[in-house]
Amino acid sequence: MTPAYESLLLQLKRLPGLGHRSAERVAMHLLVEHPHELTELVESLGRAQESVGRCITCGNISESRACLICEDSRRDSTRLCIVEHVSDLIAIERSAAWQSQYHVLHGKLSPIHGVGPEDLNLDSLRQRIAQGAVSEMVLALSNDIEGQATCHYIQEEVVAELPIAVTRIGFGLPSGGGVTYADSVTLRSALDARRQYE
Amino acid sequence: MTPAYESLLLQLKRLPGLGHRSAERVAMHLLVEHPHELTELVESLGRAQESVGRCITCGNISESRACLICEDSRRDSTRLCIVEHVSDLIAIERSAAWQSQYHVLHGKLSPIHGVGPEDLNLDSLRQRIAQGAVSEMVLALSNDIEGQATCHYIQEEVVAELPIAVTRIGFGLPSGGGVTYADSVTLRSALDARRQYE
Repeated sequence: MTPAYESLLLQLKRLPGLGHRSAERVAMHLLVEHPHELTELVESLGRAQESVGRCITCGNISESRACLICEDSRRDSTRLCIVEHVSDLIAIERSAAWQSQYHVLHGKLSPIHGVGPEDLNLDSLRQRIAQGAVSEMVLALSNDIEGQATCHYIQEEVVAELPIAVTRIGFGLPSGGGVTYADSVTLRSALDARRQYE
Repeated sequence: MTPAYESLLLQLKRLPGLGHRSAERVAMHLLVEHPHELTELVESLGRAQESVGRCITCGNISESRACLICEDSRRDSTRLCIVEHVSDLIAIERSAAWQSQYHVLHGKLSPIHGVGPEDLNLDSLRQRIAQGAVSEMVLALSNDIEGQATCHYIQEEVVAELPIAVTRIGFGLPSGGGVTYADSVTLRSALDARRQYE
């Protein structure tokens, strides 16, 4: 219709879950029907862009150096739930099935997508382990080959011979699925039924 | 998780078609996984906000006083297709079933939602009619009571006794449905089967 509209449409279509029609609907909503919301959205995006960064300890989103979960002294900081994405952490928090801390890898090993160990948030995990601060790790990674490979790598190359109890969530997570979209009951049973990883 | 993230989530959830999970997915996509897209989206929204306005003639979105359709001299400017929303105009353009011009009302009469004739883009339609520039009007409004009421109002109060052929699209549009989400074939048959409005 107009160059600025077409360019906005292209940007919106890159967002996950937005097809052509839904991008068009969002663009019309913002440009024609509710222009004040556009201003608020731009402000909100700008604020989030400025202030939201990564927790230096666990990789969760944070507005300071350490995130609210790492700073929560009621949580056992020696027990870590290892997740691929922040959205996985949020899903598990929503289920209230884990009261200790987390470590966010920001991905999983995937040779065909060119994701190697150096692309994952493993340095700070190694640091936490080196400080002797980790007694237990629950691997809450996807139930697929890449999740499996990531678990294997962490067990062999990160934990190695150290005295850390490593489990992997298993029961309940459907094959091929990720953590983010599982419901709370499934996540709770998956955490309850965690078993020794070997 | 963080105040800026929560506030962004609230903004995203106000967009049409985005529920809690999809808003979360979009926020993570922009903040954690593809931060460069956030910059581009903010620029795109800002540019669109600055440059996209309404065509003073027909109400379509436009980056100048008159939109590309009104400025297209190959289109018969005496024949108008009247639509509720810009998205309806885009859907009809996509069907290629109408080669003349448009008039966008930006809504339909809806007493229960407090939408009266003064809220619709009717002044410029009256002006187009007063200039003697309109010979035919196709009412491409929703197939519901509010669309019906809007057709009635236009026929009685806007066109009145003037020598303008007024038709309403009818055939093909499913009952209760709007124009935006109809497929091109349905819209084509609806435009072909337009009949005298009384």
